Amino acid sequence: MVAQRVAVRPEEIRRHNLSRLLRSIHQHGELTRAELTATMGLNRSTIGALVSDLVALGLVTEYVPSGRDRAGRPSHVVAPRADGPYVLAVDLAVERIVTAAVGLGGTVHERRVTTIEGADRLPRAVVDQLAADAEWLAERLPGSQGPVGVGVSIPGTVRRRDGFVDHAPNLNWRAVPFGELLADRMPRRLDVQVGNDADLGAVAEHQRGAAVGCEHLIYLNGSVGVGGGIIADGGQLHGVGGYAGEIGHMTVNPDGPPCHCGSTGCIETYIGEHALLRAAGVTDQHGPQAIAAVFEAAAAGEQRAVDGVHTVAIWLGRSLANLVNCFNPQVIVVGGSLAEVVRLDRVSVETELDRRAMAAARAGVKVLLPGLDQDSALIGAAELAFGTLLASPDSMVASLTTT
Amino acid sequence: MVAQRVAVRPEEIRRHNLSRLLRSIHQHGELTRAELTATMGLNRSTIGALVSDLVALGLVTEYVPSGRDRAGRPSHVVAPRADGPYVLAVDLAVERIVTAAVGLGGTVHERRVTTIEGADRLPRAVVDQLAADAEWLAERLPGSQGPVGVGVSIPGTVRRRDGFVDHAPNLNWRAVPFGELLADRMPRRLDVQVGNDADLGAVAEHQRGAAVGCEHLIYLNGSVGVGGGIIADGGQLHGVGGYAGEIGHMTVNPDGPPCHCGSTGCIETYIGEHALLRAAGVTDQHGPQAIAAVFEAAAAGEQRAVDGVHTVAIWLGRSLANLVNCFNPQVIVVGGSLAEVVRLDRVSVETELDRRAMAAARAGVKVLLPGLDQDSALIGAAELAFGTLLASPDSMVASLTTT
Repeated sequence: MVAQRVAVRPEEIRRHNLSRLLRSIHQHGELTRAELTATMGLNRSTIGALVSDLVALGLVTEYVPSGRDRAGRPSHVVAPRADGPYVLAVDLAVERIVTAAVGLGGTVHERRVTTIEGADRLPRAVVDQLAADAEWLAERLPGSQGPVGVGVSIPGTVRRRDGFVDHAPNLNWRAVPFGELLADRMPRRLDVQVGNDADLGAVAEHQRGAAVGCEHLIYLNGSVGVGGGIIADGGQLHGVGGYAGEIGHMTVNPDGPPCHCGSTGCIETYIGEHALLRAAGVTDQHGPQAIAAVFEAAAAGEQRAVDGVHTVAIWLGRSLANLVNCFNPQVIVVGGSLAEVVRLDRVSVETELDRRAMAAARAGVKVLLPGLDQDSALIGAAELAFGTLLASPDSMVASLTTT
Repeated sequence: MVAQRVAVRPEEIRRHNLSRLLRSIHQHGELTRAELTATMGLNRSTIGALVSDLVALGLVTEYVPSGRDRAGRPSHVVAPRADGPYVLAVDLAVERIVTAAVGLGGTVHERRVTTIEGADRLPRAVVDQLAADAEWLAERLPGSQGPVGVGVSIPGTVRRRDGFVDHAPNLNWRAVPFGELLADRMPRRLDVQVGNDADLGAVAEHQRGAAVGCEHLIYLNGSVGVGGGIIADGGQLHGVGGYAGEIGHMTVNPDGPPCHCGSTGCIETYIGEHALLRAAGVTDQHGPQAIAAVFEAAAAGEQRAVDGVHTVAIWLGRSLANLVNCFNPQVIVVGGSLAEVVRLDRVSVETELDRRAMAAARAGVKVLLPGLDQDSALIGAAELAFGTLLASPDSMVASLTTT
């Protein structure tokens, strides 16, 4: 489409390019001035001026690389400042909270993991824990410019606008104004953004994980609950209310087991962690240790565990086939404990895919493990929190220094 | 995002606005100059000049409305020329071919319906039929400027780029270079575009049917086969290879009936027309008459037919719940023979939706009947065929007059 506006103010162009340049550095970790010149399509002096602006804002630093492959003057490397601003990234899962200070470039500076159970999962208890985590992290990063935002990953349906959690079944939350509760407790009323765990996992795997360069991908997150984050044509599929991707509650057998959502035979009742334990004959234990024990036993060849993983692998293949028929993705990244199911019994997953996905769509899809291991949702939460700084680096930093 | 280009050639702007104006008239059927001025954000003299251009190109005409509600000079109405260019729109279904001459504004000028069976479904026979239809229609529109493109709706997976049909199971087509075959037989080697029936139905219902103004919608097309067209954030979801929306082949019960696709328990085996006949106890007949008879019997209260429709309605509700959980749409338009199932037993469909869709997404969705009745795919095919003319009205018309 042809641009309608025929005149743009130079200051507007500068801000736009400042944002683009910071995004490039954030995405790639570090880039030489020569790479920046090439990828941004701007001349050397413009790049030089923009880099100077970002240096002055305390966001990036420049250094001369020591190893020299070629003759001539080496191109300066532009990198995020290690003591620059960071965000508080939170991965709130059913059995643990991970809080991390994440810098530009996606670097995890510090992290704290807290195991939770029972009353620890109440919204107020979670908010208290996160406030304590924020202080704990700030103490460990004394020279830093402090947090510029908070991003939280939640295993449930979230309204993006204000972080209102409609339903997080495995936390037993319904209609919790979590974004507001947390913002009230954060220092300097930091900007708080809340997203669904699978949606954020998809963003992170797309941005810096296993699916970099793919414009059609699904991140399937399977732990106690099962959810999906969908990226189509490079953009996240949210649906009209932000509730798209509730893959775990698609019916794959109407006569199947009852699900906590009120339905029966949901995907989650076949490939969630409770299903895995049941399939492996574990009736007296639950939680991460019990799941880890099943995987260890399966890897060691113990029959009941092998059978349990096999059963879940078949149902995972069926679930993936449904996604392939629906979305025709290029990549499906399988995360959470389901990643281990793929590692242990990929053959059963792929065989069921072959059998149930339409040939043309099946031929184009790869099933991958996360590039960010267990941190997909955490890094996705960091990306969410960095949104404002990346969109307008100078106004954001200006507002920080005047607070 | 701020526009990068700071200068745009006036000629480029004129062409862009010419396209926008023709699109507006095409979408709304007709508009007054005052409405065009208001909706396009351009001044009266610019609109006047653009309308004159479209009149000179033979695409639109102007008239003074006869009824006058208000005092003052009435605004001229700009409308497509009745004898202007048309497209050949084709809805190729399993049991019939509908070919129509469709003008700007979506007006069906003439149509021809041919019943097909057996060898009539072979690609070469279909191409012969369409070539005959094209002549038949041209004879009935003697004063017209002739066809400017061909759009074909196919019940199968299609590669958009060249109209290569990967698989149309209910036609028994595999790997058919249909776009190429048809282009070779069309007069003046007209531009031929081929699309999936449900994808095109979605476009048409979004553009001028039941879902105008909705940016998140699904068109579920159910006849012999079942497929879906998905529009998310106003754009069509194609997936990486154009195969997204194969909803009919999502597994809803792995132990269910065998499907022609090679899998078992696909949605199509529960809500396709063969399933309806089976559920209604009809074993000796098939085809449109048999389906119509079941619906008539159900409407008249005959128990076996009522039960059959009820069974399909329940499975339809389950299928829709899966779509709601996956896509969080605002509207699902149910077309084909499934529309009649909704008319006869909406309660069962909605009850199953209540039971199986996540509450937040369920609350936001409406199940609607097509606004274009049986013509959704046909009108969608016309939209596809009009693409080139709408994108560059003057170059297209210029190329026609020099041919």
